[in-house]
Amino acid sequence: MSNQINIGMIGYKFMGKAHSLAYRNMPFYFKTGKTPVLKTLCGRNEQEVKQAATNWGFQQTETDWKKVIEDPEIDLIDIVTPNHLHAEMAIAALEAGKHVICEKPLALNLEQAIKMEEVARKSGKIAMICHNYRFAPAVQYAKKLIDEGKLGKIRQVRATYLQDWLMDPEFPLTWRLDKEVTGTGALGDIGAHSIDLARFLIGEITDVVSLLETFIKERPTGDMVQGLSAKKNQNTEMGQVTVDDAALFLAKFENGAIGTFESSRFAGGNKNGNRFEINGEKGSIKWDLENMNLLEVYFEGDEEGLKGFRTINCTEEIHPYASAYWPSGHIIGYEHTFINLVKDLFDGIDNQTQPKPDFIDGLRNQEVLHAVEQSSLENSWKSIDTVR
Amino acid sequence: MSNQINIGMIGYKFMGKAHSLAYRNMPFYFKTGKTPVLKTLCGRNEQEVKQAATNWGFQQTETDWKKVIEDPEIDLIDIVTPNHLHAEMAIAALEAGKHVICEKPLALNLEQAIKMEEVARKSGKIAMICHNYRFAPAVQYAKKLIDEGKLGKIRQVRATYLQDWLMDPEFPLTWRLDKEVTGTGALGDIGAHSIDLARFLIGEITDVVSLLETFIKERPTGDMVQGLSAKKNQNTEMGQVTVDDAALFLAKFENGAIGTFESSRFAGGNKNGNRFEINGEKGSIKWDLENMNLLEVYFEGDEEGLKGFRTINCTEEIHPYASAYWPSGHIIGYEHTFINLVKDLFDGIDNQTQPKPDFIDGLRNQEVLHAVEQSSLENSWKSIDTVR
Amino acid sequence: MSNQINIGMIGYKFMGKAHSLAYRNMPFYFKTGKTPVLKTLCGRNEQEVKQAATNWGFQQTETDWKKVIEDPEIDLIDIVTPNHLHAEMAIAALEAGKHVICEKPLALNLEQAIKMEEVARKSGKIAMICHNYRFAPAVQYAKKLIDEGKLGKIRQVRATYLQDWLMDPEFPLTWRLDKEVTGTGALGDIGAHSIDLARFLIGEITDVVSLLETFIKERPTGDMVQGLSAKKNQNTEMGQVTVDDAALFLAKFENGAIGTFESSRFAGGNKNGNRFEINGEKGSIKWDLENMNLLEVYFEGDEEGLKGFRTINCTEEIHPYASAYWPSGHIIGYEHTFINLVKDLFDGIDNQTQPKPDFIDGLRNQEVLHAVEQSSLENSWKSIDTVR
Amino acid sequence: MSNQINIGMIGYKFMGKAHSLAYRNMPFYFKTGKTPVLKTLCGRNEQEVKQAATNWGFQQTETDWKKVIEDPEIDLIDIVTPNHLHAEMAIAALEAGKHVICEKPLALNLEQAIKMEEVARKSGKIAMICHNYRFAPAVQYAKKLIDEGKLGKIRQVRATYLQDWLMDPEFPLTWRLDKEVTGTGALGDIGAHSIDLARFLIGEITDVVSLLETFIKERPTGDMVQGLSAKKNQNTEMGQVTVDDAALFLAKFENGAIGTFESSRFAGGNKNGNRFEINGEKGSIKWDLENMNLLEVYFEGDEEGLKGFRTINCTEEIHPYASAYWPSGHIIGYEHTFINLVKDLFDGIDNQTQPKPDFIDGLRNQEVLHAVEQSSLENSWKSIDTVR
Repeated sequence: MSNQINIGMIGYKFMGKAHSLAYRNMPFYFKTGKTPVLKTLCGRNEQEVKQAATNWGFQQTETDWKKVIEDPEIDLIDIVTPNHLHAEMAIAALEAGKHVICEKPLALNLEQAIKMEEVARKSGKIAMICHNYRFAPAVQYAKKLIDEGKLGKIRQVRATYLQDWLMDPEFPLTWRLDKEVTGTGALGDIGAHSIDLARFLIGEITDVVSLLETFIKERPTGDMVQGLSAKKNQNTEMGQVTVDDAALFLAKFENGAIGTFESSRFAGGNKNGNRFEINGEKGSIKWDLENMNLLEVYFEGDEEGLKGFRTINCTEEIHPYASAYWPSGHIIGYEHTFINLVKDLFDGIDNQTQPKPDFIDGLRNQEVLHAVEQSSLENSWKSIDTVR
Repeated sequence: MSNQINIGMIGYKFMGKAHSLAYRNMPFYFKTGKTPVLKTLCGRNEQEVKQAATNWGFQQTETDWKKVIEDPEIDLIDIVTPNHLHAEMAIAALEAGKHVICEKPLALNLEQAIKMEEVARKSGKIAMICHNYRFAPAVQYAKKLIDEGKLGKIRQVRATYLQDWLMDPEFPLTWRLDKEVTGTGALGDIGAHSIDLARFLIGEITDVVSLLETFIKERPTGDMVQGLSAKKNQNTEMGQVTVDDAALFLAKFENGAIGTFESSRFAGGNKNGNRFEINGEKGSIKWDLENMNLLEVYFEGDEEGLKGFRTINCTEEIHPYASAYWPSGHIIGYEHTFINLVKDLFDGIDNQTQPKPDFIDGLRNQEVLHAVEQSSLENSWKSIDTVR
Repeated sequence: MSNQINIGMIGYKFMGKAHSLAYRNMPFYFKTGKTPVLKTLCGRNEQEVKQAATNWGFQQTETDWKKVIEDPEIDLIDIVTPNHLHAEMAIAALEAGKHVICEKPLALNLEQAIKMEEVARKSGKIAMICHNYRFAPAVQYAKKLIDEGKLGKIRQVRATYLQDWLMDPEFPLTWRLDKEVTGTGALGDIGAHSIDLARFLIGEITDVVSLLETFIKERPTGDMVQGLSAKKNQNTEMGQVTVDDAALFLAKFENGAIGTFESSRFAGGNKNGNRFEINGEKGSIKWDLENMNLLEVYFEGDEEGLKGFRTINCTEEIHPYASAYWPSGHIIGYEHTFINLVKDLFDGIDNQTQPKPDFIDGLRNQEVLHAVEQSSLENSWKSIDTVR
Repeated sequence: MSNQINIGMIGYKFMGKAHSLAYRNMPFYFKTGKTPVLKTLCGRNEQEVKQAATNWGFQQTETDWKKVIEDPEIDLIDIVTPNHLHAEMAIAALEAGKHVICEKPLALNLEQAIKMEEVARKSGKIAMICHNYRFAPAVQYAKKLIDEGKLGKIRQVRATYLQDWLMDPEFPLTWRLDKEVTGTGALGDIGAHSIDLARFLIGEITDVVSLLETFIKERPTGDMVQGLSAKKNQNTEMGQVTVDDAALFLAKFENGAIGTFESSRFAGGNKNGNRFEINGEKGSIKWDLENMNLLEVYFEGDEEGLKGFRTINCTEEIHPYASAYWPSGHIIGYEHTFINLVKDLFDGIDNQTQPKPDFIDGLRNQEVLHAVEQSSLENSWKSIDTVR
């Protein structure tokens, strides 16, 4: 069996760039049994996809994603398309015997997610979902502290993911604002990350009650395939925003913990504010993606008079993944969360063990997204059990 | 009419100390038409109340609060007792023709609060509720910025009030943990402050959905009248904690804004974390009581490239109340919020105009507290209208 | 002997206000054997001094400071005049058998300081210098940590005191900019505080090399007796600034530590940035007056992976002076440093023991100020020994 | 002429890794006329260099650096060896007609640096020095603000570069502690970066006075070629530390500004604390490498009441280099400073224009290092003019 894993990537925008960089750089930092090869980049616009393939180092391009999945040389399908395409592509890829990594949220809706998880389970292939923020060394270290019991039983979490890129009413109606393509708005786009972090660190959510709001209900129609920084075009036609601009919910966890969650793209001054604070019996932790190398840790058991949050720069050799990079205090950034994730993906492929987060995580996450959305529609608490 | 206002204070613990200091110091910093006189301090334990009167500078003491209210020399009754006593005392004082300032929350329950507001309204006397945090210069300045439209229409608020003084399971069952005496737990004690700040800065809350939790359900019975730092006594008897340790809720505002609220006394590492962030169409503000002189302000309209939260030390002459104190950067503290409040109280008495926050504010706040509690009991959204 | 100490205060501007408040409030927070009485406030402008006396609660006023010193009813002389008057007044007061507290810097120059210390020593009276920042609970706690050896041998300090109130070229030529009245500029006004903190926490300075700079060399002449916030008057006449706007120096300490010191009134955005970081063999501490309740502490011996600066809110009962105030997290401010100092002053008077900092501290400080100034004039290192 | 630039890299430790990553990733983010090819990696230990070449993607290895320089296929020599080897290698490479990029400090001493700059000037080849921190987007943006006059005339700078990796007395005597190999200690290793940033942002330094200290004078001899994280070996032999552990100096600038500089590897809790604050007539800026995406900016001219440091996340499209990376708020890290530098290097090679910082910058920096060292030896102010 070859030591190379040929990658077919479907989609070539923001996430395509992030994933490509990760495949390129992972072997520079980590030794893995298998190494990634950027084989085929796939997209409908031939010119654009060729340009991206050149920039990112793919060997070839394709405009028909089905051909990529059928290609016997491809080992791993990486799905970085808008959400409504995840299910069909992932299912086809798994059924064609490929490993799959899929961007989050897993699917457009719960129904698709259930099917995807089932196919993945039966396929025996690696099927990973790209919740990259788990892979920040500070988050992995938080997980370790919690697992070791350093915080005791977890009681509370407050998780926010705050951005502000939609504040401008002139910002056009990209696919991320169209329910048919994206499922939900801030909820599925960024709230899904908060849910994943909470599930990773605390456990399963059992009940939610939510409040979803769309502040700007009409926007100029624009280039639907733009990334986060789409600029207004000359178009003066207006279209409906069909997803939430902000999603707030309360949650109960299986282990008795409770929490507040909020995702918003209208929180002025917050550029990428993926943050959480977790309180346990014995201590607390705080994290903020905008200073992602730092973890703040409080121990109730510290010496009297010397209690206080410690600001830990998780770039020491002892911190997860950190020894692969630079000396202490030489920080890493956003893209390294993907590199660490790809490291685990390739170890999984090599060891034939399913790395986390997998499609079960994706499904559980989608159940929460679904329950949150339903709660908002029904104006009531929603048990995750009832949506399963 | 005399220029002195004789004060009868009922209660002599933590809040008694804070209010006494405020009366003593207000005239040092501000010129007002009337000046406070610490006339009578009232409490049931004669020895303790005498000691407090000596420490704080009261002229005399009394053990029967009704006598204080009847005393014709007393102009202003200050109620700093546990919550279950507020209603009876405030009503009696107003009916006796005294001005009243009452600690928050206004009452033990909504029924009492309704009655109190009615009596206050009819009395024609000054009736103020002591939501002191409004009076931090940074909060007053935030109000000014919002009123001037500098943030545009307000869309979101996230308010937390986090403390950790109940984490120790050995901490005894003080009156603040007994529903009969205090009404609610974290909700009424500290959540009420967050509600007041939100009402002050944004407007009326119309709907809530909540989640209340008691993490430690039994505690050693102890000295019920202790302050925040009660120490365990030798008692090994256990009693039931009958109030919430943490209270979480989502809220809708009359003006269309939405928000998350959380109060907890189990958030390790947070000593007095009364914080809010408010996002509007044009900008955002952040405040944290633990660094109460600072206000963080973000303007979406700032020059491209130079957008970012400004950290403003609200100690400049231009900032509300600040010119009474020290030069720029010479910070004030917790107690000064009371001094500023007393300034407004005495201006109100002098001008015969009702200062804010008044008993209407207290009642509105109590309605929200009530709705939050009911929402938790009924596991459903609760409209404030329905509790009125 | 009476339990009351009658105070005669000479001067009635910024420091007069701060000291008056401290005397008023100290007994509210602390029990001391003696209690302060605001007896006589002295100033040359009768109308102004009468107004101040009314505002602050002094019993009487006087325009001739010598009469205050001669008054047999006065026990303690508090000198809050411009620097050039300290020596004459303090010496006269001590020789008249009064206790003395004097604002910093001790004197206009080293010669005066030597004389003052000599007279104080021989007088047997209490003679304190008002380096109030020592008395922030966080600073006192830092001292405790160092004395207990928690930081090991101290190796480095970086101390800055940064303000920006002189950036406006229209700000008038107050007495603080006139060498004849003030001695030095930023150096003696704020740098003296940094020196005191370093001496308090680390020990004696032995050698310095400095760089003093005056950025704005001419200013409109104005009301010479204004405080920090003097406003430009109509005067268009310009006068020479005869002191330093910024003072930088390197220092060696007796115990082998080394440090950098900087004071400036031109550091835009820094309102009252009295800050230090101290590094020892085993750990570090950081403090910032603008968030004066916080102390950041780092222990090299903390568990691997969990090393980081702890942010400690020094408002716990265990922290020095803190138990006199409010519960944990309820911060105190600038004025409380004076209250704590007055507590020690009154304990000293009561116990007939000299509280610190005393005139020896004032003299040592003045020696450093003198050496720093000489170093700048001579462009060379200056040993403190050589200026003694 | 080929569009590829073949790189011969001499050295393969910490800096070799950083440079290699930069060459690999630059074309992913930027379009340049020439693209880098990792041709030859050179080091004396054949086994180690082969391993590094595999990890980093070099095509071949070599153990004799002269052969790399003679290789006609090599276009660019990248020197990442210890400092004592820079001069010989750079001069040979330039004389062989190669472009050169050399790690900082430029040379072991001033004599070498003078020669290197002369050879570079005469060669007509690109000769760059690797002061990578200039290339943080926040620093580049600071430069832009200063050049546009947004801060007015610069008056003061305080620059610190604080680390703590030498606090452990068991840390062995690596080459960075040996004067023969490294020249100076903290001064040349990290202080050189502070000097470069100050020269870049403010201008030339004219005079310095310094204080250099070695806290731990003997250490176990160890593997002399280790990076920052060398571990103690079994060796019990002790050797002399012949360089400074901390270097402090005051500086005057050509344009009248003054500053304090400090570099230390004994500042516990500071992992990579490369920080500066610059104050000008109209405003101030602050930067900290540990949160390198942020720039704090203060404008004296901001509206009264709203003055305060703005915290700007320099990840917007408008910020220098930032548009090549990720959307706003998705931070970059340490390694990206090298990527940006390589972008400028390749543009320079392509356009045949000398990118900055060049060997003149390296020489100017070395002059300051030399003057600082001399000042310490002579205990006096040192003019840069006198060392030229």
